Order: sequence, then C-alpha cells, then structure tokens
Amino acid sequence: MHITAGQKNGRVLLRPLGGVGEIGKNMMAVEYDDAIFIVDCGLTFPGKDAPGIDLVIPDMTFLRENSRRIVGLFITHGHEDHIGALPYFLKEFQVPVYATRFTTALAEAKLQEHGLRLPKGSRVVRPGETFNVGPYRVLPFRVNHSIPDSVGVALWTSLGWVVFTGDFKFDYTPVDGEVTDIARLGELGREGVFLLCADSTNAERPGVTGSERTVGPALERAMALAERRVFVASFASNVHRVQQVIDAAAACGRKVAISGRSLEQMVTLAVEHGYLKVPAGIMVTVDEAAKMPPHKIAIVTTGSQGEPLSALSRMARGDHRQLQIQAGDTVIISATAIPGNEKDVQRTIDNLYRLGAKVVYGTEAKVHVSGHAAQEEMKLMLQLLRPRFFVPVHGEYRMLVQHAELARQVGVPAERIQIVENGQVCEVTQNRIRITGTFPAGEVFVDGLGVGDVGNIVLRDRRQLSEDGILIVVVGLAKTTGQVVAGPDIISRGFVYMRESESLLEEARARVLSALTGRNGNGGPVTEWSTIKSLVRNALAQFLFDKTKRRPMILPIVLEI
Amino acid sequence: MHITAGQKNGRVLLRPLGGVGEIGKNMMAVEYDDAIFIVDCGLTFPGKDAPGIDLVIPDMTFLRENSRRIVGLFITHGHEDHIGALPYFLKEFQVPVYATRFTTALAEAKLQEHGLRLPKGSRVVRPGETFNVGPYRVLPFRVNHSIPDSVGVALWTSLGWVVFTGDFKFDYTPVDGEVTDIARLGELGREGVFLLCADSTNAERPGVTGSERTVGPALERAMALAERRVFVASFASNVHRVQQVIDAAAACGRKVAISGRSLEQMVTLAVEHGYLKVPAGIMVTVDEAAKMPPHKIAIVTTGSQGEPLSALSRMARGDHRQLQIQAGDTVIISATAIPGNEKDVQRTIDNLYRLGAKVVYGTEAKVHVSGHAAQEEMKLMLQLLRPRFFVPVHGEYRMLVQHAELARQVGVPAERIQIVENGQVCEVTQNRIRITGTFPAGEVFVDGLGVGDVGNIVLRDRRQLSEDGILIVVVGLAKTTGQVVAGPDIISRGFVYMRESESLLEEARARVLSALTGRNGNGGPVTEWSTIKSLVRNALAQFLFDKTKRRPMILPIVLEI
Repeated sequence: MHITAGQKNGRVLLRPLGGVGEIGKNMMAVEYDDAIFIVDCGLTFPGKDAPGIDLVIPDMTFLRENSRRIVGLFITHGHEDHIGALPYFLKEFQVPVYATRFTTALAEAKLQEHGLRLPKGSRVVRPGETFNVGPYRVLPFRVNHSIPDSVGVALWTSLGWVVFTGDFKFDYTPVDGEVTDIARLGELGREGVFLLCADSTNAERPGVTGSERTVGPALERAMALAERRVFVASFASNVHRVQQVIDAAAACGRKVAISGRSLEQMVTLAVEHGYLKVPAGIMVTVDEAAKMPPHKIAIVTTGSQGEPLSALSRMARGDHRQLQIQAGDTVIISATAIPGNEKDVQRTIDNLYRLGAKVVYGTEAKVHVSGHAAQEEMKLMLQLLRPRFFVPVHGEYRMLVQHAELARQVGVPAERIQIVENGQVCEVTQNRIRITGTFPAGEVFVDGLGVGDVGNIVLRDRRQLSEDGILIVVVGLAKTTGQVVAGPDIISRGFVYMRESESLLEEARARVLSALTGRNGNGGPVTEWSTIKSLVRNALAQFLFDKTKRRPMILPIVLEI
Repeated sequence: MHITAGQKNGRVLLRPLGGVGEIGKNMMAVEYDDAIFIVDCGLTFPGKDAPGIDLVIPDMTFLRENSRRIVGLFITHGHEDHIGALPYFLKEFQVPVYATRFTTALAEAKLQEHGLRLPKGSRVVRPGETFNVGPYRVLPFRVNHSIPDSVGVALWTSLGWVVFTGDFKFDYTPVDGEVTDIARLGELGREGVFLLCADSTNAERPGVTGSERTVGPALERAMALAERRVFVASFASNVHRVQQVIDAAAACGRKVAISGRSLEQMVTLAVEHGYLKVPAGIMVTVDEAAKMPPHKIAIVTTGSQGEPLSALSRMARGDHRQLQIQAGDTVIISATAIPGNEKDVQRTIDNLYRLGAKVVYGTEAKVHVSGHAAQEEMKLMLQLLRPRFFVPVHGEYRMLVQHAELARQVGVPAERIQIVENGQVCEVTQNRIRITGTFPAGEVFVDGLGVGDVGNIVLRDRRQLSEDGILIVVVGLAKTTGQVVAGPDIISRGFVYMRESESLLEEARARVLSALTGRNGNGGPVTEWSTIKSLVRNALAQFLFDKTKRRPMILPIVLEI
C-alpha cells in the first residue's frame, strides 16, 4: 500500500457504545470526515444483578439518530461480546459488514437463526489486504486470540493510522501457524499511528500470557494418566483448543466424541471451513462412545463456566440423558471462570468429585491459557505502534487505568492518554485528546422476545420481589357506598410460607379491614382509590416490618362492585 | 498432663452439622461414651441463590432430639463461621460454652445484642491447660489464624487423642508472638492421635501461606509512597492487621481514624482486652481526620468485600456522610475477595479509580496474606500428629478431596481417610472408619426476625419472581350464579412495564374473560374455585410465553361477591 502523508488537520471522534469501562458488548463508533465506521457489535450475558434478563446489547440511539452517516461495520472476531448484537443491529441498519472468513461464517450462522442475511455490499476481508469504505482506507491485520481468524483493524486518515487491536495476544507458536502480524504492526508504527485503541482485558497480569500450544502437552499428559474416560470442558469457540484435544486423544489412542449443541455446531463449521483438522476415523457419536472401553474415549464438552444447563453441569448433577460420570473418569476443565461464574464452576467441580471423578483444573494444571495479552505483550504492542494518542479499551475501569499506566511506562505522554467510558465522546485532533461530550449509551435488555421492554423499573421490582416477596391485598368495594363488600383477602408469595403464618396474615387482614372501614380515620368510608391503596399500604408496611423485619412489596387491589 | 493408655475399645462418632463439604457455619458434634461434645457453632452469609436471606445457620434437629446428652460447646475462635449461630443455639440449649479470653469477649458482645448471656458453667479456657467435660479430657492448643486467641482442641478418649485443628496456619513470626504450639502438637502425636479433623480451606494452594508479619512492610511502603490520605480496608476481626496498619501509620507520621461500626466495636474490645497496642495520641475521630492535612492521615475501614452498605463502598459511590474519596488518595484493599464477592470488590475498585484514587490490591501488592494453612503446612500438621484416622473438615468438597490426597502423600493409608459431609454419621473404631448413617443437617434460613420460616418453597417463589415477575388476575364472581361481576383485572410486577404493554395485557384480559365465561368450555359458567384458577392459568401461561418467551408466576385471585 502506498501512503501519502495527509494533511494534518481534521479530527477523529470515538464514541464507545459498549465495552469500555466494562467487559462485554464491545462496540465502537469512529467518526472521521463525517463518516461513521463501527468496530464490533457485541453483547453481554448479564450477571445476577439483572435477574431474568437473557442478553444485554448496546443502546443504539446514537446510531439511530445518525444512521445515514454510517458507512460500515467491521467485526474483529466471532466471540459473542464482539458479534452477538449483530442480528439486533441489522434489524435496524442495513450497512455493509466486513469480517474475515471464519467470522463471516459465524455471523451468517447467527443471522440465519434470526431469519436474516448479511446486507448487500458486505464482504469477506483478508488480513493484510486494504479496501476502501467511505473516506477510510481499511487494513485488517492478523492477531492471535482464542478463536480462529481474529484480526485487528487499522483505518488510514489524514492524521495517520487509527488502530483497533481487537482482542489480541502475541503467540509465536500458534496452533494454526498464523502469528499476530508483528512486521505489519511495525510498519504501521513507522508510517505513523495517530491513535491506538488496544485491548485491556489482562492489564492486571504481569508477564506474558503464553502460547496456546503449551496447553497441548498438558492435555496429553492428563489423558495418558487417565485410566478411564476423559472429559474435556472448554469454550465451544476455542477451535484450537478442540484441535489440541483431538490431537492429544489421537496420540493416546482415544476416539473423540462431542457433547453439547453449540460445540457440535462450531466443530461442524470449523471443519467445513478448514480451521479444524480431524484425523480420519477418530470421531464417534456420544452413543457410540458410551459403548466403547472407557480408556479409549475422550469427550469434548461445554460447561467450563458451570452454566447450570450445560452438558458438563448436567453430568455433574447426574441428569444428563446419555452420559454419566463414573468413578475413575477424568474431567479436565480447560478454561478459567469468568468473574461472576466462580461459584458455579466450583459447584460443578465439587459435584464431579462427589461422583468419584478425578478433576484437572486450576492454573497449576496448565490446561488453559488466556487469549488476551498480558502486560509485557501490551507494552510490545505499544512499542511496535508508538501511537501519538492512546485510548485503552475492552476492559473494566481498573484495567483501563492499568493499561494507561503501561502506556506511560513505555513513553506515551500522560496528556496524550485518555480513559474514555461508554457514552463519552472522545475528540482527537493533531494536538490534543479530550472528552467533549456524552451520548446515550446505556444497556438494552433482551428478555425472551422483548428487546428493551424490560427497563430499570421492572428490574427494580424483580429485585424487590426476590428479596422479600409480595403481599397482595384484594378488596371489593361497593360502587355506590364505598363499603367493603368482599375481602379483604391476602395472598403472599416469596414472603412467608402461608400455611405456617396463618395468624400473621389473619392479623394483617384485620388491620386492613379496620383501616378501610374508617375506624382509624375520619369515621366514614373512603372512596378515593389512591387513598384506599395508601391506607392499605400504610396499615401493613410498618406492621409487617415490626413483626418480621422484612419489607415485601405490598400490592393493594381494589375491585369496584 | 499424665496420660494412661486407655482401653482400645469404644468408638467415636462424628456428626458434622455444618462446614464439611461447604465453607461456613462450622459445627461438629462429637459423640464418645454417649456424651455429645460440640465444636464450634457458626453461620454462613448466603449467596445470591438465597435472595433476601440474612443468615444461614445449621439445622439443629439432631441436637434437639439428643439435648440431654450434650455436655458442652467449645468455640475455637471468634469468626462468624465458628461463633455466629451461638445466640440461636443458646436459645434452645443451656450447656456450658468453652472458649479463650478474646473469643469469650466476642461471644458475650454478640449475646448481649440478643439479650442473652453465657450459660452457667461456661468458662474461659487457656491454651495448654486441660479440663474435664463429661467423659472428655479437653486440651485447647494455640494456633495461628487471622483473629487473636485462636485455638484448636484435643479430646482425650480411651482410643487416643481426637484432634480438631480449628482454622489454623503456621506463622513462625506472628504479630502477637503467639505461635501455633508445635511442640505440644508433636507431644500429642507421640502420645497417639486416634483421629484428626483438620482445616481444608486452602488445600488447593501449594506451598506455605506466609506470615502475617510480611504484610506490615508492604503497608508501610504503600503509606510512605502515598502523597495524600491512605485508606486501608480490612476485615474488622483481623486485629493483627489493624495493629500493623497502626504501626505503619505511626512509622509514617500519620494519625489513624477508624470508620465503620463493626470495626470500631472490634477495636474497642481488642484494646480493652490488650490484643491491640495503640501508641498514645495516634487515634483521631473521622471528623478530626477530615480537618487534618491529607498526608497526615490513615483511615482503617470496612468494606474489603465490596459489601454495598459498607463504609468503603459508600465512599466509592460518593455517598458516605463524612468521608469523600479525593483524587490522589490511596486505598489499600488488605484482603482477598471471598468466592462470590469478586464482582462487588471489583466494582468498588473501579469506582475508586473513577474518583481518581490510587488503589493497591491483588497478590502482587503483598498487602494481604491468608489466615489458613497451605499444602505444606497441612502436611506439617499431619506429620506432627501422625493420626491413625483422618477426616478433612472446613472446606468445600474439592478441598476435602485435595486434603485427603495430601494425607495419603504423607503416609496415612487411604482406608483410614474418610471424607464426610454435613448430615453423615462417621463412626471411628480402633480398626476402621466409615459412614454409618445420616441425620437431618440442612440449612436453616434466618430472614429478618424469622428463623426457619423461609424454606425452599418461599425461596423457589422468590427465584421465580426475580426471573420473570408476577401476573395477578383478579376476578369477582357472583356467589350464587358464578357469573363474572367484577374484573378480570390484571396487574403485573417485574414482568413487563405495564404502561408500555397495554395491548398485551388487554389481550390477556380478554382471554381470561373468554375462558371464564365458558365460551371455550362446556357452555356454562364454572363454579369450582380450583377449576377457575387452572382455567385462568391455562388461558394465560401459553399465551404469554408465545408472546414474550417468559414465564411469569400467574396468580389468579377469585373474589366471591
């Protein structure tokens, strides 16, 4: 590619819609020369603070209001936190999608489930080959990560290169031989990187992450030592891990079965596109595996995060339809727990031990490495690119702070480093970087079929219901006189077990009746609904708190008869 | 003490009421010669799986049914998971309580809040001095742990010593100079340990834990580097940690303020009993601290677990009444997150960084060491005591398995090691150890004032409510005819936001009405209440699932008018 030194005016605006100041739902809108280029479109799986919510996607209000200026969406790799919101995005925005071959295959599979297709103009990109999108010259470059065909992306502007690393690490001996394109990164650095946005996930970890290839010998050792069946739990999308499990099994004379729908789909796709090499005759079905001698079998499965419905968790609880863990089986947890999942993973391990399995897990076992750069690799990226301005991305706030500190250590002046959070507009000109404003960038909850219909009020109700339950008071009032003609009836759920609390509820009922018949008030019946409801609430809230020290939701229901 | 070799028959029964196969609510009933001796009486703070529950205590049904055979309760140390259920225990069982001086002081403070006292016959015990309880000769022995005055306890029986380590580690340079009594442990080993029950908490950690004293220099270094105020978050009960914070502050010319009610109480008690040495003039109030130059102040606070209501979390959110975190302040997290608390701790750290604080945390910072033995210390304990039989306790199942493996490594034959779980009866005779039965040992939930009135049904309701909310259908039926004379009215909470879902709820209402007026049924009105309720549920459940893919609790309420 031939680069001409551009004019040095103009500006770049960054608007993170997600993934900056948090882990998950990565989405960055870049604006240059009035054209908006989007990098990634991810989702988050919510924690226990958002009960009942299935997914969280970025709030796309800003894009909606500026949809005509969007020139394209680039996806760096196929993990859910970078690709997962694509169906929701494409229902609103018909812009070309750019991604490498495997990422495109994953995107298409995902869109198919939603009855969607990639928009016209979308294209499969090749690392190292540039193409034009609006005013941008776009260069995807190879990076190592825990899913095949991952790339970062560099955008040429009149100010120099604007580089997004995507999720990355430096793996000098990757399983597929595709190394992060260090030479190209050095070249970008020489040509002039105006702005770098780099992955901060492991900014708290000193040293280097280590090669994916180091996992292979550990897997093989564990399999060689195993006297009976071996189960390996991993992320479905970690195709190179699956490759190493298959290779280790082959070396140990074991056949391989795949358990778990997401894993089956991923393996099929990876084989089809040439990302997974399966020796002839090694794969068997789960049913076939069940009939083979235990020392001849390795089973790859999902559930490395202790997800209650995953294959491994069900095996650990003894309620998997086809596979039962037997005493002497070996289970390898080839992953680490994502923060928030620790207890679920530990519970799964405990249950496996209860069934008599040998469990191989934890850092000592060396059966897992991260897909993200540690501190020394982050410094290498910074030294290769030597950016004029630096914005740490993909990480919770403390990780961004650590990454910023690393940038200072390698010589980026503090005033050229900017920590940005979701919803902040970051303006970068030739001379300075700063936050110039904000835009709407909250969380949009997906619950069942609803997108955005569950908001903070509903979640607040769910949390209150989960803490102390609900007490429903039903009363029928005569339309004309306002006299109590039916009830009050009291029903509770999640508050106390009703059969064992009859006297409490009976007293509560008496208090409501007394409040409503006006004996405590101005002598006559009350007819204003809102007054009636607050009378009921007042009569009960303090009484129940005094008796139980709990604050259930109190829901008065008045029927006019 | 003079030991005579006893007869070699008889048996010991272990009945763990808690703390074995789980972390928390440690309570072990030992039975020998028909007399039940209890070691510890702890509680658990429940996880997010038990919403609204304040505390979990052991199910004491077995004790209730055998109360006349209980001869005493021994408490090894003052942590809540060993002492916390004492008030609930003493409301039912008036047996003598044995504990060291500081543990007794903590017990008395706790009982006072419940309007209780230690029963007659209770006594303060001294490590190394034996006393008799029923058929047992009892020997408390000094151990190191993260609270002062911790001990293990050995019981002499005709079979030899039965030893409970309590929570322990080997600290050769403890802050208070009180080392785990290695010599005495060796002596017990020489005299003959029949059965050892040892702490398994850190059985997954290789190496040794390290001395509490190593934390002091790291604290002092962080304080010396700090240009403004220093906050140190720690567990209130870790008196030696507080001592080291005070010493580091003194060395750096800083005054010390205490923030947080539990910490103030603990410091008062520790000073009063001589466990905390405070240089004259160093302590100031939080209000005084606020007026002093920032580099002259260190503030000890609670909230190392990110507890939302703790002093530190409130400061991090900017809603603490007296203390605001300012840019340039240093916050030292002198603790590690208990499993399940990781996200809360991380959120607190993120918020502190957002306020511009420097945060010192994590293993690299060396500002925390565990209070529990790691693998090499566990082996040392096993080698000192050389027990005939071994039962790993205090730990989740996988930790018990690891600890059992360590015992095998140091030479305890596999058939003399028994993993026991809460609710299992473990019988140990001269020749063998085995599980001989079970007893009721579930969890008793404390919610507000209620002890045990919230059970699994209520919790199941709370979880369902928190996932998808509730939909209440109220209908008034004429007593005589069964005709609908009021409603149906539909109210929802935690399901959908009602104002934005009017058409959905209107259609739901129509479906209920149609079901009740019998148009879909046998032509006439229905009068059986249970039939009416299931008609309503059936009419709605599938309809709502099809429309929303959610399954709210559906609660039909029928008023007879």
